Amino acid sequence: MKLIDVASGRKPADLVLKNGKLINVRTGEIEDASIAISGGKIAGIGDYEGKDTLDLKGLYVSPGFIEGHIHIESSMMTPSYFASTVVLHGTTTVIADPHEIANVLGIPGIEFMISDSENLPVDIFFTAPSCVPATDLETSGARLSADDLLKLRSMNRIIGLGEMMNFPGVINGIPDVTSKLGIFEIQDGHAPLVRGKDLNAYISAGIYSDHECTDIEEAREKVKRGMHVMIREGTAARNLTALLPLVNSQNWFCFSFVSDDRHPSTFVEEGHLDGILRKAINHGIDLITAVRLVTINTARYFRLFDRGEIVPGKLADLVAFDSNFTVRFVIKDGKIVVKDGTPTFNPPDSKLRRLGNFKVEPELQKIKVERKSGKIRVIRIIEGNLLTGEDICEPLINGNEVIPDTERDIIKITVWERHRGTGNVGTGFVRGFGIKKGAIGSTVAHDSHNVIVAGVNDKDIIKAVQVLRDMGGGLVVIENGRVLASLELPVAGLMADKNAIELARLEEDLNRAYRELGGSLKNPFMQLSFLALPVIPELKITDFGLIKDFKVVDLFV
Amino acid sequence: MKLIDVASGRKPADLVLKNGKLINVRTGEIEDASIAISGGKIAGIGDYEGKDTLDLKGLYVSPGFIEGHIHIESSMMTPSYFASTVVLHGTTTVIADPHEIANVLGIPGIEFMISDSENLPVDIFFTAPSCVPATDLETSGARLSADDLLKLRSMNRIIGLGEMMNFPGVINGIPDVTSKLGIFEIQDGHAPLVRGKDLNAYISAGIYSDHECTDIEEAREKVKRGMHVMIREGTAARNLTALLPLVNSQNWFCFSFVSDDRHPSTFVEEGHLDGILRKAINHGIDLITAVRLVTINTARYFRLFDRGEIVPGKLADLVAFDSNFTVRFVIKDGKIVVKDGTPTFNPPDSKLRRLGNFKVEPELQKIKVERKSGKIRVIRIIEGNLLTGEDICEPLINGNEVIPDTERDIIKITVWERHRGTGNVGTGFVRGFGIKKGAIGSTVAHDSHNVIVAGVNDKDIIKAVQVLRDMGGGLVVIENGRVLASLELPVAGLMADKNAIELARLEEDLNRAYRELGGSLKNPFMQLSFLALPVIPELKITDFGLIKDFKVVDLFV
Repeated sequence: MKLIDVASGRKPADLVLKNGKLINVRTGEIEDASIAISGGKIAGIGDYEGKDTLDLKGLYVSPGFIEGHIHIESSMMTPSYFASTVVLHGTTTVIADPHEIANVLGIPGIEFMISDSENLPVDIFFTAPSCVPATDLETSGARLSADDLLKLRSMNRIIGLGEMMNFPGVINGIPDVTSKLGIFEIQDGHAPLVRGKDLNAYISAGIYSDHECTDIEEAREKVKRGMHVMIREGTAARNLTALLPLVNSQNWFCFSFVSDDRHPSTFVEEGHLDGILRKAINHGIDLITAVRLVTINTARYFRLFDRGEIVPGKLADLVAFDSNFTVRFVIKDGKIVVKDGTPTFNPPDSKLRRLGNFKVEPELQKIKVERKSGKIRVIRIIEGNLLTGEDICEPLINGNEVIPDTERDIIKITVWERHRGTGNVGTGFVRGFGIKKGAIGSTVAHDSHNVIVAGVNDKDIIKAVQVLRDMGGGLVVIENGRVLASLELPVAGLMADKNAIELARLEEDLNRAYRELGGSLKNPFMQLSFLALPVIPELKITDFGLIKDFKVVDLFV
Repeated sequence: MKLIDVASGRKPADLVLKNGKLINVRTGEIEDASIAISGGKIAGIGDYEGKDTLDLKGLYVSPGFIEGHIHIESSMMTPSYFASTVVLHGTTTVIADPHEIANVLGIPGIEFMISDSENLPVDIFFTAPSCVPATDLETSGARLSADDLLKLRSMNRIIGLGEMMNFPGVINGIPDVTSKLGIFEIQDGHAPLVRGKDLNAYISAGIYSDHECTDIEEAREKVKRGMHVMIREGTAARNLTALLPLVNSQNWFCFSFVSDDRHPSTFVEEGHLDGILRKAINHGIDLITAVRLVTINTARYFRLFDRGEIVPGKLADLVAFDSNFTVRFVIKDGKIVVKDGTPTFNPPDSKLRRLGNFKVEPELQKIKVERKSGKIRVIRIIEGNLLTGEDICEPLINGNEVIPDTERDIIKITVWERHRGTGNVGTGFVRGFGIKKGAIGSTVAHDSHNVIVAGVNDKDIIKAVQVLRDMGGGLVVIENGRVLASLELPVAGLMADKNAIELARLEEDLNRAYRELGGSLKNPFMQLSFLALPVIPELKITDFGLIKDFKVVDLFV
């Protein structure tokens, strides 16, 4: 075996990394040692000769970073573009939950994620989405049954069950939910604020991770009771500051750092796990413990025993960075894929592909709201929060019709079913966007990702739907029939074959256009996308109409 | 699912353990909490009601202890008797390497170990012996090829490759050895004193454990380079004192405590892992770290993810003990198997079974040593050591024959092939037993376990072989044609259906009889059994004759 020959010194290594400060995640020490690589694996640590040599000049060298929980779709990048972005930040392995595309396209969507993530400088593994659809209060593009999960289990690179969001279903032993348990050995959790016996019940189902902790006492209990706590630092949800004080020399092996949902601009501004490490160090955790949370801990939780440590026989996935966590070199499977901060691989092909049905008939008549007696429910946006409020307001009437009232910041909100051609449209009113004219629309609309458009007048709403349909999905800002800004997301209406920098620029164009309409929310499209998520209180909207307390409710009180 | 119902408090538990001090191996804390058990699993930790309650009255409660590396054969107990002994000491899981019986009987021997370890109060897993036979310098009862290992892989409860003792073969990439690698994901190591690039080479083959460290620097390097270091505390080899100072708050997860070879008397005098924990605490390690080394660490190394932590959904394997590690209660799969220190299960049936061929023709003529010119090689026993010396001595001559010389403590040593009826006998001389009359014999003779007899006169040697053959194997002391003491080991000549107390008593009878012959070694049968192990220098003997430097050598220099 060649690796043994190289390790023993009988044959030269393919590559030797010299003068690195090796972060030994096993012993908690930093070593001055060279690393010999052969055939994509680590052969040995010590004084070796190689055909090639890379002088790290005193940089730290760590196992490649491992992302333990992310929805790639939230980055708006296809997996190949996503990989080419995160590898620059030292990420060499990702465990992704393709929950969003699964809601749109089902198994073919997951198959796309798998096929688009082959032969990349990052190994992307997947968990099988456990909750598609999230509820029966909307029309999703697909359903995944327990039988579907069985099929997914045999697919390449699917290594576990994705976050089991239906925690009440687990805790109450609902058969439709528990039938999905036990198919995979690794089962990821999602149990915000679940404590005590409910937590015992959820864990007893074999769900041994959670990334929803917001409170340190909640996280303390979850670790104690058996969970691997994934400390999330995403674009919106940021729990690092609150949870980091819990990590200590006794329990560090029970934690990972993860991203969950991260927008293109966050990758541009903060990087990926490198940025989380930087922040963690600034919050007082020591270097080696921090690195363990994105290497050995995550590898072991996901039973990826071939990586996460700089040890002979393991994959030569390595990252070299300076004391500010600026990534200089990345080695994947023994190949230098980032050199002096610059990729050595070709960027993915910029494809103009479309994926998914788009069966929408934008008709004005469908979103006319007929006058009835009484007041109306209005969704109230709470900035920076997925929760909404419910305001009960006097309707503004024009003839026989309820119309938007920009004076009181009450505009129309519509959700158009796009997957199956049901023709369903939900129509209601929302306050908080602050726009005085035009409309904004998106096909990113959690979790079913129908078309969601908020607007001041019906014509611009219809125009937004038409533009989104013609683009095959995306984000758009319309003023008076004209497209002020748009971002095409033709892959399931969620992703594009573009890199983070392009996407972040387009995202900024959209936000600027939105402000031109008079709005002032920091992340209007993020707020918009969560108005369609009915599992979160208080008042939401789907293609079924307004949803409150897990029921469809009438506009008029 | 019933477990969820119990965990959530909707249904009563089968059993609730109250008032225990729960050793939380995850957080490193001790909790006052009750443990609810249902259907053999842990349902929850907290305030629960149960059909049965066990008041632990302030005892510590820990996950059941896990033995990570032991040769059950060395206990002389069959697996069922072994289990009924160690469970009293808190052991609920054992990973055993059936290397000894495999050398005698091959796969059928391993099948016996598996079938004899069903439905016990201890889960016994096995590794597939990697080195059968250990050398080609002797006649073993069986050979295990790479193809045989492939067959073993599919057998019940075989979870890895047993200790790869042929470390030079691995390091030098010898195909016969490397062909056995990669069959199992878990590969146990055995690499005494291997360091530097040789160690890298051995580890690069995917061998990630070692239990042969004797020196702290050796162990430090092995941990650093990726090995799980099993700190051995057996009957003869005791490494705890030397290695324990290496275990610290950074690296504790890289260690386990194991027994390797343990004689019946050691179980009686020191117990099992409970005794090792007691000793470790006396050497200054803290309670929770010590317990981790026989619970979570060993479970995780062997990827037994269903145990090793007191966590909902895991097996209810628990042990309750006082502050002196005196085991009071043991719960296996949710059942109380030891109550107030007393077993609640039935002892195994005392069977009179025999296993294995015994093809020996004890003939005086075969062990006559013909006079030649020159001096003779004599094996010199070094007390307490597996190594021997080589003395070059003047032979004592009687007529045409070399005979024992008790004046100089030179007696005859013989090894009789017993597995295949080859009729092979190796004859030589040994000093160090100190007996002035009679003979001592054994069918425990590492690693091929032929019949080994040392004696002052040929008649008593023949008598010893006859008695051992008629018993179907065992240990014997003969004086003047009379059996002074004997211990039957009819199962492959290695084990008996007896418990540790009986065996320890019989062992003591044998030692006393040996002393009556004039001997003064502390463990004469242990010393005898290793005289046939040719991999250890300097001079050994097998059925091929005297062995030195991995070659057969003549008696006369």
